[in-house]
Amino acid sequence: MKDSNKVFYLNAELPVNFSMKISSGIFDIGNSELLSFGTQGVNSRRIVVVDLKVSRFYLDDIRKYFKSYDVHCSFIIIDATEENKNIETLLYLLSEIESWGLNRQNEPIIAVGGGALLDIVGMAAGMYRRGVPYIKVPTTLLGLVDASVGVKTGINFQDRRNRLGSYYPPLVAYLDTSFFKTLDDVEISSGLGEILKLAVIKDLKLFKILENHGSELYKTKFINCDHSDKVISLSIKGMRDELQENLWEKNLKRYVDFGHSFSPIPEMRSLVDESVPTLTHGQAVTLDVIFSSIISHLRGMLSKNEVFLIMSTANDMGLPTNHAYFNNPDILMEALNDTIKHRNGSQNLPIPTTIGTSIFINDLTYEDIRVAAKIMMELNDEFFK
Amino acid sequence: MKDSNKVFYLNAELPVNFSMKISSGIFDIGNSELLSFGTQGVNSRRIVVVDLKVSRFYLDDIRKYFKSYDVHCSFIIIDATEENKNIETLLYLLSEIESWGLNRQNEPIIAVGGGALLDIVGMAAGMYRRGVPYIKVPTTLLGLVDASVGVKTGINFQDRRNRLGSYYPPLVAYLDTSFFKTLDDVEISSGLGEILKLAVIKDLKLFKILENHGSELYKTKFINCDHSDKVISLSIKGMRDELQENLWEKNLKRYVDFGHSFSPIPEMRSLVDESVPTLTHGQAVTLDVIFSSIISHLRGMLSKNEVFLIMSTANDMGLPTNHAYFNNPDILMEALNDTIKHRNGSQNLPIPTTIGTSIFINDLTYEDIRVAAKIMMELNDEFFK
Repeated sequence: MKDSNKVFYLNAELPVNFSMKISSGIFDIGNSELLSFGTQGVNSRRIVVVDLKVSRFYLDDIRKYFKSYDVHCSFIIIDATEENKNIETLLYLLSEIESWGLNRQNEPIIAVGGGALLDIVGMAAGMYRRGVPYIKVPTTLLGLVDASVGVKTGINFQDRRNRLGSYYPPLVAYLDTSFFKTLDDVEISSGLGEILKLAVIKDLKLFKILENHGSELYKTKFINCDHSDKVISLSIKGMRDELQENLWEKNLKRYVDFGHSFSPIPEMRSLVDESVPTLTHGQAVTLDVIFSSIISHLRGMLSKNEVFLIMSTANDMGLPTNHAYFNNPDILMEALNDTIKHRNGSQNLPIPTTIGTSIFINDLTYEDIRVAAKIMMELNDEFFK
Repeated sequence: MKDSNKVFYLNAELPVNFSMKISSGIFDIGNSELLSFGTQGVNSRRIVVVDLKVSRFYLDDIRKYFKSYDVHCSFIIIDATEENKNIETLLYLLSEIESWGLNRQNEPIIAVGGGALLDIVGMAAGMYRRGVPYIKVPTTLLGLVDASVGVKTGINFQDRRNRLGSYYPPLVAYLDTSFFKTLDDVEISSGLGEILKLAVIKDLKLFKILENHGSELYKTKFINCDHSDKVISLSIKGMRDELQENLWEKNLKRYVDFGHSFSPIPEMRSLVDESVPTLTHGQAVTLDVIFSSIISHLRGMLSKNEVFLIMSTANDMGLPTNHAYFNNPDILMEALNDTIKHRNGSQNLPIPTTIGTSIFINDLTYEDIRVAAKIMMELNDEFFK
């Protein structure tokens, strides 16, 4: 726009460029990749933020790694649970960064942990001196295929998830599946839930691998599994392609919201309701994927066999195919209404048309939900008969 | 960059576009400009954050203004002093925003106050739900020519200025000089110090207006002064042109850093040292402008008469031309060393070659500073003789 006598325009563009690298043994002595950003050599320094659970398995190795390169480190250990993803932890981290006297350009902060840890460290890095560089080293499958790709940072605030945060890109994310060997089974299946989501909504090729090798991926924890790299790379590419076009979420029609329309309230509520099984994020997403697939089926798109195929693939990967909340139309309607608020008044529900292709719908009714919840129960009865 | 089998690139660009509008009577009933962003009419809502000092003069008018448009408001009053520009105030503001249940897209937060208030509100707006829209209404001359143009937000942290913050653009800044009538003289002169900085380093035309009408601008507080709009528009344009090219401060050679190389430590220290006169920000900047002009003079660039012209223009606008700290080479050297840290190891000192043109120098020595500090004293003796 052109200035007038009274109005002056400021126009600029912030370029955002970063990479996600499939790496193995990122803390192996002799592998200097992690130090390729920032100063190196005798006087080099790094802040390394490690999740408490991760530190129990890997802190000794991590210390030895930096020692072998003569890097002077401050190790900050954070118990990055969902409960601790809060303002107190953020301020603690910022105080540690300040007292370390971080160089604002040459000492990228290294974040080693799952999604919650990456979110907190990203937020701290984004706000300290209006932004210092940081590197993501996800250690969970969910963190690797989800948090490592985006630029979203955040903490919970006043009981609201990710109520405070920013869009702040890392320098790079190193994707090292060797951390998975120390994950619990449920952490693997939970990550597979997010991958299943991506497969069903936009990637038939990825779905075929999960259909045929999901069980193997789950059981091997991606270690020495022939399909590991392919699944990681299709997932990362799929996420990247979606996010790249809409990095600041101006467009509220997002395929990556698939699985996240009905699941947030069931997930949260299951944590405090002792009468139902607790749901992890990936489990809740999977149930939403199946429920949304049933909506598609009821509208004449996905066949019943395709819905069964999605259910059996989920089942192979240790994921649930049913839950009391997904048979309860009132809870699902409440969840949808909350989602509508987040999508600025529209449903914008991504729904598969076939496995791997999809549309957005905006006309789902309570009656549709009631019928789909009933069918979800019936299909499960039939499936496990 | 192109993906390989193992490396995936994410490339995106964030467009930033906003405007600064010279407006008069922004809270005059009948002037709907302030409501042109966001929802309007009976069900419309706004959070309006007003500086405590500003609220004493204008809150009644502001309330009446929104009432006349049937806008339901939450007025948040903040005593936005430098001391209160901290994490507690930020969290208080965020809590108020959360409990109000702000709509993330249609209810721009309206910030009414000086630079400190705009900085805090901008930071809160930038982090609440990863960014909600906000509008700047600066009420001080310094806020109007400085904070209203940029995208920098921030708070102080652990005794360090603006240690936490972000780059977060407003929708628009409304520049309304009618607030100036209730400013103290020193607030006018302090703002004129930032304008003088811009004039000396890059705008001879602006300098000529200050030279000839600085006294009038100072005495009238820009009210009913023929030169007011011209000075505001040249200042805004000058700042905008500099910032637009370097909005995220990747380039550490910045002309707008003129006046900010030697001044931060004298300014801060003067607040606690009872043996010297306290310096406002604009006063400290002015002293740095004069000191840097003397450095230029000693290198054979600015003539002695030009230095005198700058001093007399400052003097006309109620600004100091000397201060004990600027005769003390040790304090100035300490200040320079601190500045070098902020400029990643380089001096990058903007120095005028003539009034309105400039270069960067990187070879200033302690001896240069010692001589310049002595000349600063001598020129003042001669000037006031």
